[in-house]
Amino acid sequence: LFIIGELINGMYASVGKAIRAREASVIQERARAQVAAGAHALDVNCGPASRNPVADMPWLIEVIQQVVSVPLSLDSSNPSVIEAGLKVARSPAIINSTTADPDKLAALIPLAKRYGARLIGLTIDARGIPHNKDQRLQMAAQIVAACAEQEFPIGDVFIDPIVVPVNVSQAQISDILEAIREFRIISDPAPHVVVGLSNVSQGTAVRSLINRTFLTMAIACGLDAAILDPLDTELMNELITAELLLNKQIYCDSFLNAYRKG
Amino acid sequence: LFIIGELINGMYASVGKAIRAREASVIQERARAQVAAGAHALDVNCGPASRNPVADMPWLIEVIQQVVSVPLSLDSSNPSVIEAGLKVARSPAIINSTTADPDKLAALIPLAKRYGARLIGLTIDARGIPHNKDQRLQMAAQIVAACAEQEFPIGDVFIDPIVVPVNVSQAQISDILEAIREFRIISDPAPHVVVGLSNVSQGTAVRSLINRTFLTMAIACGLDAAILDPLDTELMNELITAELLLNKQIYCDSFLNAYRKG
Repeated sequence: LFIIGELINGMYASVGKAIRAREASVIQERARAQVAAGAHALDVNCGPASRNPVADMPWLIEVIQQVVSVPLSLDSSNPSVIEAGLKVARSPAIINSTTADPDKLAALIPLAKRYGARLIGLTIDARGIPHNKDQRLQMAAQIVAACAEQEFPIGDVFIDPIVVPVNVSQAQISDILEAIREFRIISDPAPHVVVGLSNVSQGTAVRSLINRTFLTMAIACGLDAAILDPLDTELMNELITAELLLNKQIYCDSFLNAYRKG
Repeated sequence: LFIIGELINGMYASVGKAIRAREASVIQERARAQVAAGAHALDVNCGPASRNPVADMPWLIEVIQQVVSVPLSLDSSNPSVIEAGLKVARSPAIINSTTADPDKLAALIPLAKRYGARLIGLTIDARGIPHNKDQRLQMAAQIVAACAEQEFPIGDVFIDPIVVPVNVSQAQISDILEAIREFRIISDPAPHVVVGLSNVSQGTAVRSLINRTFLTMAIACGLDAAILDPLDTELMNELITAELLLNKQIYCDSFLNAYRKG
């Protein structure tokens, strides 16, 4: 599983404060800790309260790049913020995200091509969050078709089915799992499939248990990337075990340590 | 998930000793504890060291039936032991198990019909444990066809793909998961799918973690029954959460307690 650490996000109080005060050490500590815990990339989000994300995003990227060398996922719904990040991010970066809206695709696919970035495509459009599997598949197909048309490599596309909280849209979870399975056969080569994991447990009382159970189910359905909290040890243990069961590392009694040592 | 408790098995030292000494209380305590923890049925196995399983099996069943009323799964490779159990077991019992061998099917399907029992069919035959998904599917089809031919209801059949230890046959685990998915579409109505869960972690160093990760993956693939240890709280928490995510109970913040209270 390609693990994208979720902890550098201005919605966390300490991160939001560090961004406003330009306290690099708070951000850098989170960057180092996530990479040490197994993150292969780091999501970077200025947060909903940022007053100047076009300045905050490049600052975040520069201070993170001082301490770690993993790819960064530039997380914003505003293409100007993403472009400001791409100008300073080391390649390959990840654009998080485009939607299935034609104007978003028209803006972000060329940006991804110009900067050699990978692209996360959310199965959502101006009509809002999809209500069923078929709508998710339709929007995934739109994203993949737009990328193919612009000769953007499908192997650099990550489709995100938009995970909803189980306490809000419980009936949709099995639809989302089925969509993950079908995204993987939508084209050849297949796009990757990513989820923003913690959404599934938003507002619930036992978040870590719900997160790791859903992640394991999604991995069984073909998920190959996730934006998650790599400092959640129980989540990571289960993720590593799911990879072991899918024969993605060789069994030894200390397989958890072996994975963590790389 | 239909949960069959695995703890009444003569291979456990205390159970083996209790069987030999006819100490009902040891057996009855395990029966009560498993049902209290959520078992919907109890597996009953005299163990490999039993010298007289044709006598041990009915004794076990009678002492268990004194304290709990859930169905019992009569676990033996010997049809005479199973028949000795069926004579005293309350209906509906579960026969655990037949193989795909024609002579086993010819003996056990009529027995299941005569006693109104459900039937677990292992995808194994005289040639041994299958080596891939197609062999598993082929044997599942043989079992289902034999049941259909003898007018035994397919809704009372549980197909078991034979789970192998991850440290022995690691490459087979994903095959087994895929087989579980395909068993569910082998016929209409579909057979149930059951696993003997703890086999997957046999001989490994972190058994509970491997068991619960595999179980969650298998549930995502359509598993609807398992022989497992219901006293493993972390396993049960995850099983309950997987059912929640598949919309099989209504979300509330205390869904773990709600499930356990029935």
